[in-house]
Amino acid sequence: MNTRPPQAPEFSLIDLIARHAGQRADVVLGIGDDAALLDASAFNGQQIVICTDTLVEGTHFLPGTAPQSLGHKSLAVNLSDLAAMGAEPRVATLSLTLPTAGSAWLEQFMTGWQTLARSYDLQLLGGDTTRGPLSITVTTIGRVPPGEALMRESAQPGDLILVTGSLGDAAMGLIQRRAAAVSDDRLTEQLDQPQPRVHFACQARASIHACIDVSDGLLADLTHILDASGCGATVEVENLPISKALGAVAGQRLARDLALTGGDDYELCLSCAPDQLVRLQDIASSLSLPLTCIGKIESLSGLRLTDAQGQPYHPGRMSYQHF
Amino acid sequence: MNTRPPQAPEFSLIDLIARHAGQRADVVLGIGDDAALLDASAFNGQQIVICTDTLVEGTHFLPGTAPQSLGHKSLAVNLSDLAAMGAEPRVATLSLTLPTAGSAWLEQFMTGWQTLARSYDLQLLGGDTTRGPLSITVTTIGRVPPGEALMRESAQPGDLILVTGSLGDAAMGLIQRRAAAVSDDRLTEQLDQPQPRVHFACQARASIHACIDVSDGLLADLTHILDASGCGATVEVENLPISKALGAVAGQRLARDLALTGGDDYELCLSCAPDQLVRLQDIASSLSLPLTCIGKIESLSGLRLTDAQGQPYHPGRMSYQHF
Repeated sequence: MNTRPPQAPEFSLIDLIARHAGQRADVVLGIGDDAALLDASAFNGQQIVICTDTLVEGTHFLPGTAPQSLGHKSLAVNLSDLAAMGAEPRVATLSLTLPTAGSAWLEQFMTGWQTLARSYDLQLLGGDTTRGPLSITVTTIGRVPPGEALMRESAQPGDLILVTGSLGDAAMGLIQRRAAAVSDDRLTEQLDQPQPRVHFACQARASIHACIDVSDGLLADLTHILDASGCGATVEVENLPISKALGAVAGQRLARDLALTGGDDYELCLSCAPDQLVRLQDIASSLSLPLTCIGKIESLSGLRLTDAQGQPYHPGRMSYQHF
Repeated sequence: MNTRPPQAPEFSLIDLIARHAGQRADVVLGIGDDAALLDASAFNGQQIVICTDTLVEGTHFLPGTAPQSLGHKSLAVNLSDLAAMGAEPRVATLSLTLPTAGSAWLEQFMTGWQTLARSYDLQLLGGDTTRGPLSITVTTIGRVPPGEALMRESAQPGDLILVTGSLGDAAMGLIQRRAAAVSDDRLTEQLDQPQPRVHFACQARASIHACIDVSDGLLADLTHILDASGCGATVEVENLPISKALGAVAGQRLARDLALTGGDDYELCLSCAPDQLVRLQDIASSLSLPLTCIGKIESLSGLRLTDAQGQPYHPGRMSYQHF
């Protein structure tokens, strides 16, 4: 079924994508047939980790977002899910729905994709390009040794709650961009080019109990850990990692609320036994990655926020929801 | 980023999807965490086959298409790609972009999905639901013994060209539906509920040289085989498998043109050595699947169509293009 006249052949777009696909020795057949073929050695007897995410214009990113940022981000949000499992990326597929078949747009998109993919030796195996409202679906496949995957259900009372990087920057960057205000590059970079914490997660997984990536906002995502683990927690809001860039443009209350509920952070929120803190800090430090203790897992259910005086803290914003 | 107020929580949709996901013993962790986990035993040392396809409303299906058909078809077109590789399906992911969060719509969609998935013991591992213009991306993962995958590049001069099922029915069904004409159920069923030829491909792969599934139209897809294999072919149009249902509503010329260029057939087009014909016919016959010889692979490049008198035949319609 084809409702509009052809503008540019799908196949030249596929050739363009194939030039940026990367190359792994365990990929037997990449882009160009009905499906791709991967040798079993890619997983070497480990468990196979699979996740998928869609970014839709107007829902997940503003119209007019730079294609290079979209190329980076559509892969980064997937790799962030693999990181949350403690998994090492291997291959990916990409489905692109584009309003017009613009090869200049696609060239920039794939440049953003490939720069990130190369740093993980990840090969793009194939995908689909089709016409329609701008939308990007990525599926990534990785591996983790049996029994070592990080799950949401493994938090234990007494665990410390840690967060990588800083929170709230991307949400502030989005506010600035929406207002067409002068924006701070450090904030919009967090929005456009989040860095998935794959290296940290793979090195640290033996010391971690539960883990999730912060995509919907810390409160929402930490609640997933608590629900899955049958625990509660207290988070001290003065310990939230607020970047200097965010602190400089937002008052304390807005900064904290964005850190709690802004979403789009793609940092890891994890729990660990207290005696693993030093090891985790050493790993983070070797990667120049901030790692901050923000609270504790408790047996009493519910998520409690407290201020510096130990009083209950009530955030002001609703958490992100896809619907 | 959330541009509209929430209507129904994403998580109740995910619960609905999870109820229809199916269950395989080698899936360690299905829907509900950051990613899914699959045991290496799912592939048992075989090669891993991966493909993805997107269906967009208005490009791949008409607005108002029954959700149960979409659930079936979005999986079927992917399984058809696995069939074209001779691969056995294992697991899938599903990304759904929906204009509104309608659980009644989704329930019907998943019923269509699950009915087909169950017949292949395929488990849905996870996915993503998000708001936006209706679009469905499915990634399926299967397996094939090393060296046995069917590729487009393996056709050889002297091979017979065979096609499963009949061609042109789905294209005629679409014409009828667009015209809001009284439609023949056998034609619209081919449009809405194509049957991927997985069982045939898995049993027959040792006797097949090159293989592709007919999604863009026989001419376009056979040309992919010829280009990849560095061969040419002659197809005798009077041998094209035209169903009785199509023959009853279309004149001979329209029926042939739809069979050649209509697309959306999801039948297999394959080449084999002449001495494998009987074995392939036996397998097809045991599956009650028509299998028709339509021509020959030749060393002279180019695709030649001939009529019953051996004269060149010129089809009237353009082939399907996604752009």
